[in-house]
Amino acid sequence: MAIGLMASIALSHVRAAEPVKEDFQISEVNQAGKKFPQVNSEGRVRVQIAAPDAKYVQLDIGGVKYDLTKNEQGMWMGESAPQEEGFHYYQLNIDGASVPDPGTRYFYGAGRWGSGIEIPAHDQEFYALKVVPHGLVSELNYYSGITGKWRRCFVYTPPCYESNIDKRYPVLYLQHGSFEDETGWPGQGKAALILDNLIAEGKAKPMIIVMDNGYAFRAEDEQTTTSSSRPNMVFEEVMIDEIIPLIENRFRTIDHRESRAIAGLSMGANQTMRIVMNNLDKFAYYGGFSGTANYPSATDIDAENFLGGVFSNGERLNDQIKVLWLGVGTTEPDVFQLSIGAFRKMLQKQGIKHYYYESPDTAHEWLTWRRSLYQYTQLLFQ
Amino acid sequence: MAIGLMASIALSHVRAAEPVKEDFQISEVNQAGKKFPQVNSEGRVRVQIAAPDAKYVQLDIGGVKYDLTKNEQGMWMGESAPQEEGFHYYQLNIDGASVPDPGTRYFYGAGRWGSGIEIPAHDQEFYALKVVPHGLVSELNYYSGITGKWRRCFVYTPPCYESNIDKRYPVLYLQHGSFEDETGWPGQGKAALILDNLIAEGKAKPMIIVMDNGYAFRAEDEQTTTSSSRPNMVFEEVMIDEIIPLIENRFRTIDHRESRAIAGLSMGANQTMRIVMNNLDKFAYYGGFSGTANYPSATDIDAENFLGGVFSNGERLNDQIKVLWLGVGTTEPDVFQLSIGAFRKMLQKQGIKHYYYESPDTAHEWLTWRRSLYQYTQLLFQ
Repeated sequence: MAIGLMASIALSHVRAAEPVKEDFQISEVNQAGKKFPQVNSEGRVRVQIAAPDAKYVQLDIGGVKYDLTKNEQGMWMGESAPQEEGFHYYQLNIDGASVPDPGTRYFYGAGRWGSGIEIPAHDQEFYALKVVPHGLVSELNYYSGITGKWRRCFVYTPPCYESNIDKRYPVLYLQHGSFEDETGWPGQGKAALILDNLIAEGKAKPMIIVMDNGYAFRAEDEQTTTSSSRPNMVFEEVMIDEIIPLIENRFRTIDHRESRAIAGLSMGANQTMRIVMNNLDKFAYYGGFSGTANYPSATDIDAENFLGGVFSNGERLNDQIKVLWLGVGTTEPDVFQLSIGAFRKMLQKQGIKHYYYESPDTAHEWLTWRRSLYQYTQLLFQ
Repeated sequence: MAIGLMASIALSHVRAAEPVKEDFQISEVNQAGKKFPQVNSEGRVRVQIAAPDAKYVQLDIGGVKYDLTKNEQGMWMGESAPQEEGFHYYQLNIDGASVPDPGTRYFYGAGRWGSGIEIPAHDQEFYALKVVPHGLVSELNYYSGITGKWRRCFVYTPPCYESNIDKRYPVLYLQHGSFEDETGWPGQGKAALILDNLIAEGKAKPMIIVMDNGYAFRAEDEQTTTSSSRPNMVFEEVMIDEIIPLIENRFRTIDHRESRAIAGLSMGANQTMRIVMNNLDKFAYYGGFSGTANYPSATDIDAENFLGGVFSNGERLNDQIKVLWLGVGTTEPDVFQLSIGAFRKMLQKQGIKHYYYESPDTAHEWLTWRRSLYQYTQLLFQ
């Protein structure tokens, strides 16, 4: 391929020490018809953009910047170091402007809509789009009196939902992390495909999944906020008083604690642990993906005082929580490993049963959370 | 506001001849927390982007480029001439790179995911998000044997759909235009909000709306395509043999021609006119928004030969088609006005009843089509 050849010549002198494997494929997250970005078998990301008058263009993946090289036609091209399997957010830097790559579809993360790249994972079959029955993902707008704002959730209903019109289903409430929103799980999280595949194989019970936005502030608090203060989040109130009643009313749910689960990633793991422990009459399943409510602390937890002492009676909690599930990626930063470790140490001391999963070779990113969802949902509503 | 003041000083000498009204508001299509782009009461669009090392930055709305000015902090800012009411696609040009503005949400149009801007329209109430019951918009993935590809549609179900589980609903199949896709109507088209509001006011019957992708090619044709040839579209076959059976099977529809409507904009108007006229056993309502099947021709139409002579017997067609609806924006390019005019002349000659709507002061853009949908759907399934 002419472009590939040109690139390998242009870049050969600057990257002599690290030869780049020329087996790049068009990325699966590209916009229809766009030839770049591409990914090779080493997990390198190659981007290309026309910017004839630019001084410099860089590929910025998670804050690490890679310089691109311009050819005579004003086309910039270059590639990253090998990336870990799974999904990563990235941007282009054109003469100091951080902008999305016009080649990709866009995803909300890092507090912005921006580019994403998918490094094919060795286990990607579990979230692949396959010829199996597919559920629906529905977008629902609702007015929230607590926040004085319109909010939105996405609701996955399983493939059999429309044909079994008398059947009612259990519900999983599933939350994103910080600087993400309600589009994370149905988008880059691939929640619907993971459940479609699990349900088709009989490995998970058909369930409804509700994906809402974890950011929620009282209207009056937001108005009085100064730049140096941040209002308290009221997501727990929105979840209990608004989201759950909305879903119970609109969908054919089973209104019982043993048919209601909750889970979240990172900030969402912290939030949902507080919600479940404050509302044990409503939930019997908890999943914490890369996060616990003691984050970021790595110090020993005093069960008598932590979250109102809910962990102080291990036997009672073992009766109440049918599945307490924790997961983390093996290459996540220490702060996650250590705070989750301190939390588990407390659980062990209290004799509280729990599942613990390590996602091999993944960081604080979506492949860790896709795998966590895949593991966790198989244990629900059994 | 400091930034606004600075801008008016910086730009005052270059735009002395056309003073800019300093009443800019944050655009409704911005990403959460982003202060730019903004729109003023003249319909000017003001953008801002940090690009400290750029030689030039331009705002590009529909191919018309406006130069921005850099301040000492490396922040570029500037604004467009006044724009027409409604939605427009735009990009930024940074040293020759055409990229989305990091301030906006993104929309698919002009063959790409890119920025959009909304100039508040005097009649925007009909598509505003209001405290009325809201329908769901569901995303459905399906495998198409005809094209050998996975395809996707969005399905609007009216607010009452979940509570009336024995009720069946009529269906409108609604298509986008060229270089757009199935996200156009549920996104910038605001189809769900338009119907939610109409249904709440009792002005439209509750209906299902199916929004699919009008681009469809046979797998074998795509493989043999060279750069100089383009395969034939097979969207009609996909619609009749795949999409309609899929929807009939999955949703509670009324399987009868008088409960099935079709409409499209521009390319979609052309496509759906062919589909309805070839399948009068399946549809009784047609809506052509800014397009007809004789496009781009302005010459007289011979009813005996056009579309297989279906218009030759006006009396028979008047019996078969309950609503034949045409609409166009008053500022659309001549080619649309003239081809639609030639089509209407033929209808009149044949004595074929039809509705004709002109959207005041709108171009070949989404406000024309939002208004068309608003008008057309009030006439359906009565």
